[in-house]
Amino acid sequence: MKAQAGPPEIARVCERIESLGYKAHIIPGEQRTAIGITGNSGPLDAADFEDLPGVAEAIRVSKPYKLVSRETKRENTTVRVLDVPVGGDEIVLCGGPCSVEGREQILEAARAVRAAGGQLLRGGAYKPRTSPYSFQGLGEQGLRYLAEAREETGLGIVTEAVDVETFDLVEAYADCVQIGARNMQNFSLLRRAGRSRKPVLLKRGMSSTLEEFLMAAEYILAEGNYNVILCERGVRTFADHTRNTLDLSVVPAVQNLSHLPIIVDPSHGTGKRDKIAPMSLAAIAAGASGLIVEVHPMPERALSDGAQSLDPKQFGELAEDCRALAELLTMRRRLAKLPVTV
Amino acid sequence: MKAQAGPPEIARVCERIESLGYKAHIIPGEQRTAIGITGNSGPLDAADFEDLPGVAEAIRVSKPYKLVSRETKRENTTVRVLDVPVGGDEIVLCGGPCSVEGREQILEAARAVRAAGGQLLRGGAYKPRTSPYSFQGLGEQGLRYLAEAREETGLGIVTEAVDVETFDLVEAYADCVQIGARNMQNFSLLRRAGRSRKPVLLKRGMSSTLEEFLMAAEYILAEGNYNVILCERGVRTFADHTRNTLDLSVVPAVQNLSHLPIIVDPSHGTGKRDKIAPMSLAAIAAGASGLIVEVHPMPERALSDGAQSLDPKQFGELAEDCRALAELLTMRRRLAKLPVTV
Amino acid sequence: MKAQAGPPEIARVCERIESLGYKAHIIPGEQRTAIGITGNSGPLDAADFEDLPGVAEAIRVSKPYKLVSRETKRENTTVRVLDVPVGGDEIVLCGGPCSVEGREQILEAARAVRAAGGQLLRGGAYKPRTSPYSFQGLGEQGLRYLAEAREETGLGIVTEAVDVETFDLVEAYADCVQIGARNMQNFSLLRRAGRSRKPVLLKRGMSSTLEEFLMAAEYILAEGNYNVILCERGVRTFADHTRNTLDLSVVPAVQNLSHLPIIVDPSHGTGKRDKIAPMSLAAIAAGASGLIVEVHPMPERALSDGAQSLDPKQFGELAEDCRALAELLTMRRRLAKLPVTV
Amino acid sequence: MKAQAGPPEIARVCERIESLGYKAHIIPGEQRTAIGITGNSGPLDAADFEDLPGVAEAIRVSKPYKLVSRETKRENTTVRVLDVPVGGDEIVLCGGPCSVEGREQILEAARAVRAAGGQLLRGGAYKPRTSPYSFQGLGEQGLRYLAEAREETGLGIVTEAVDVETFDLVEAYADCVQIGARNMQNFSLLRRAGRSRKPVLLKRGMSSTLEEFLMAAEYILAEGNYNVILCERGVRTFADHTRNTLDLSVVPAVQNLSHLPIIVDPSHGTGKRDKIAPMSLAAIAAGASGLIVEVHPMPERALSDGAQSLDPKQFGELAEDCRALAELLTMRRRLAKLPVTV
Repeated sequence: MKAQAGPPEIARVCERIESLGYKAHIIPGEQRTAIGITGNSGPLDAADFEDLPGVAEAIRVSKPYKLVSRETKRENTTVRVLDVPVGGDEIVLCGGPCSVEGREQILEAARAVRAAGGQLLRGGAYKPRTSPYSFQGLGEQGLRYLAEAREETGLGIVTEAVDVETFDLVEAYADCVQIGARNMQNFSLLRRAGRSRKPVLLKRGMSSTLEEFLMAAEYILAEGNYNVILCERGVRTFADHTRNTLDLSVVPAVQNLSHLPIIVDPSHGTGKRDKIAPMSLAAIAAGASGLIVEVHPMPERALSDGAQSLDPKQFGELAEDCRALAELLTMRRRLAKLPVTV
Repeated sequence: MKAQAGPPEIARVCERIESLGYKAHIIPGEQRTAIGITGNSGPLDAADFEDLPGVAEAIRVSKPYKLVSRETKRENTTVRVLDVPVGGDEIVLCGGPCSVEGREQILEAARAVRAAGGQLLRGGAYKPRTSPYSFQGLGEQGLRYLAEAREETGLGIVTEAVDVETFDLVEAYADCVQIGARNMQNFSLLRRAGRSRKPVLLKRGMSSTLEEFLMAAEYILAEGNYNVILCERGVRTFADHTRNTLDLSVVPAVQNLSHLPIIVDPSHGTGKRDKIAPMSLAAIAAGASGLIVEVHPMPERALSDGAQSLDPKQFGELAEDCRALAELLTMRRRLAKLPVTV
Repeated sequence: MKAQAGPPEIARVCERIESLGYKAHIIPGEQRTAIGITGNSGPLDAADFEDLPGVAEAIRVSKPYKLVSRETKRENTTVRVLDVPVGGDEIVLCGGPCSVEGREQILEAARAVRAAGGQLLRGGAYKPRTSPYSFQGLGEQGLRYLAEAREETGLGIVTEAVDVETFDLVEAYADCVQIGARNMQNFSLLRRAGRSRKPVLLKRGMSSTLEEFLMAAEYILAEGNYNVILCERGVRTFADHTRNTLDLSVVPAVQNLSHLPIIVDPSHGTGKRDKIAPMSLAAIAAGASGLIVEVHPMPERALSDGAQSLDPKQFGELAEDCRALAELLTMRRRLAKLPVTV
Repeated sequence: MKAQAGPPEIARVCERIESLGYKAHIIPGEQRTAIGITGNSGPLDAADFEDLPGVAEAIRVSKPYKLVSRETKRENTTVRVLDVPVGGDEIVLCGGPCSVEGREQILEAARAVRAAGGQLLRGGAYKPRTSPYSFQGLGEQGLRYLAEAREETGLGIVTEAVDVETFDLVEAYADCVQIGARNMQNFSLLRRAGRSRKPVLLKRGMSSTLEEFLMAAEYILAEGNYNVILCERGVRTFADHTRNTLDLSVVPAVQNLSHLPIIVDPSHGTGKRDKIAPMSLAAIAAGASGLIVEVHPMPERALSDGAQSLDPKQFGELAEDCRALAELLTMRRRLAKLPVTV
């Protein structure tokens, strides 16, 4: 739409779109509003829309993904989790245990995250486990503990929904609903997340290509939820010195193609405690908008993923290093944009 | 249990197991009945069970999977789909289109499969698609067409359930419910399949290890459904001459560790029509219990996967070759077991 | 060239090619002779050649490989190793130990291969080993033992040349010089092999694409040695139930693009003895022209690769199964070509 | 050896080692000298050495690599290329074109690298190319141009030796001889490099595990050349948004196991110009000792790898960003070691 187009023009374009049997998506930008069209099975006629008042141009989006594409929205999207902006100027640190194991454990973890200057608390109440006989999480009790931790610390809660059945419950407690790597192509779950009013953290699947990753996000946006944070967590390769191979190059690749923010999970990405700090710094240097890190008050006693969890002290040092690094990078990016004076 | 142990002894062991808070699984074998115990969080005391009447021995299953393991059940499992035994002496050929696209299409495909001597009909009414904008299947209408095709041809129906929500419907129509590769670790769906009384065809995930594959099957058996057919359909690698890399070595590897039957999908496994016949023969030669192949009356008009579908004539030739090959292998296996006479 | 073109016409075309600064490769076929041109940095003018007497047409080869391509030579190439045709109507079985460990060992292995009806003997005198401290082979002494085994059994010798320095020596003893997977892109070694008058067995690299594999062969042909046998030996993937993932789909893929024969190494391809037989049969069913299998008189005492070696009895049974399978496939291929009569 | 052990004690230990038929490697450290033993086929008796004067203890090195291991030498190794320390306190930037294409091109590239504060110049005179018909480098002429560039700019020269035959020539001109990814397991070439007095830059193979990478370095050290710089350059995976998947986690993994320095090649590691800067920063943040980056005066005219080359301006900005980042990290590492004061 043209910069001066107002609600009536926008509404009229949406009507036209819907009268043709398609779905309209209003995507506000800083300068102009874009209106995405989905539901068409082939190319549309630009002339059907360009004659409407307020329309600047009708652009054919050439990628298989539309709403997640920078072609549709040029500016970066900032997703607010509780009151924390993800994808803005500052990096976001989300810490917490793999699983909520008990009231004390999650409260202590939350205090540690808070003390380190972290903004978000992670912790699984429902855990997708390879074995049906492994600990599957505390369920709603875990969610209640998370809510208590939020009340005490003010941290926003990021927790996973493993299926459509328990989504309502998770959504009720969470400030951001995580979709795990194994569910990246669980399309029913993605659609349900798309109908949620909570932001969604979408993890890249273990052998997902960049296009599949963005298409999974597209499923969520196509249902109307534009608050999606992407997350790289390592992919599966032949390499055996880490649990997964953290593919940091996907960070600039996503930023090139999409307006959505992307953060990095160095805990699952490496699976080894001594690799978390260097890979966290590397993620920030590569341009990630934040980190999601496993922090446990006593990693050696964790019911799951202890070997890849930091203790509070380690997380505190890491947080400080990351912030210093992010500040430097922000400063240098600003310098690079200054006019060169003689 | 001892060979002579009868229902009362078995019942008593189950009671003991349940009184301890665990779950008992009765697994009948040719010679003896085994009773699996799940739900324990650590090793149990063998003495708790060995003193009961009819108990032969209490074996600790060392693998993370129990019910799918050959340690639990030595003989091959034969799964009956409608009246077709999968995993028995004869190979099973399942053919049909990727998606049910219409009444005529699926009826023609079913007739072609029947004419070629195939025993099962495949066809998706619900399709998991990478893009939210791609054709997602005909839904219940597609299931009704499949039922009609079964009525006319007598072929058992194999069709995919993509989520828990539509599982009931799929289960009502299908003779065997397929769980797709993307859902191999959708644990809620696996549990639901485990509560079904229909057999389940479980496809290996795109980057699934053998252990993860067997653990996914374990989820289904742990809920009480022991009729699981495994299916190799190619894994994701760097190789680009085929859509996926068909890992036939998983066939003998599964047969070594598990009593469950395994079949092969050479259509998704290669993604290219001219590779289907050689890889089908290779799969049979590697010992697979059958094939699931995409067959379309007019592959060039298919709404999905046309490039990897056979036409009826090609499928007919392939079926004949496969049967000839399977017969030869059966004959040679019998010869190998004969006593050598001078 | 036209079918009736004789040596003088061929010579004249070669002269023209060379006068333009390129290299001519005469490739005789059943019906007609083709002349390949290499050394040009861009497209040539067809008119420069089509006006010469005897020239049927000038075809631009579109693939990056030329001499290995079916576009250049339509008929299958049969490579003769000693007197054994590889790539002809019958499958070829090459067996023998990973390394030549001593005189008795290689003689016994050779006798076992011979007794099983194998045609070629493998055995490494020079071994590329991951560790500098591992057994590196017996060197020339090993080659002498191989020659002695040939003398006694009549088997042709396939043995590896690991570098240019020892190539002369290996070439002097071998009937077919093997280039190992790690050396598939050792271009100096490929060029040296291209100047050899002995046939070459080229193994696919651990993470080689089909195109890289064919380009490696092209290096050998480009130097004038057209007797190249390709060999699939498994690629590196995330899968951990076998040492490598045997990619049998490369067999029909190679046969589609190239006239060169391809065989399969199920020993390195799986790394596990109990997978060798099923994957050997699968390889033959996929259309491979033969197998190269590790056979050791006493696998449990082997200095290298014992876990993936067959003993003589196992090899004998496998050989018989493979021949029966190959016969059946040949018969069915002939049947398929017969005119259908009513 | 004990800290006070002098040359006579060391010599005596070496004698003992050699008298037993093994090879002794003197490895000087900051505090103490270590003496590595290789050439033994099994465990040795510690008592054979511990009774000699000056011996502190005899340690069995448990890894398959010995000389590259931190168990053998605790302090980081600094490798000097010309006068540039690699692996010391400061990061090292090596820039230059993929291939030396001409005198002007390499001189301009060298000036650009110099101007940006880079310390080393890369450029291939011998190029390993997938196709026999691609540009294979200028050979010795290219080496002469590199030498001229060194003379003018003072930059040390890093250039690849592709085979044993041309090693002498490359060694004569180079300040550091590169062994490329395809040759990582070309053991003859590694041994030749081990007998060189020039430092060696060893690139990780395309599908090399960490252990194979270190074992390849071990081949060089085992021949007596301890000046080896390791280099991560991306591995081959299913991911298709970059040419290779840059595995930065191997940087801390190498540093954990080995005393050798490791640098990163973001050009081959990503294959895309717009990924080079973020991945360069990520590499430095992960702890790499430097970068080797493709820089071309006019990337759009490069004979090879133009799409992954930076122009002089881009390299200048990158160099500045990297140094600022490295300084920050050094500062923070020092801070972390300070005693905490109240």
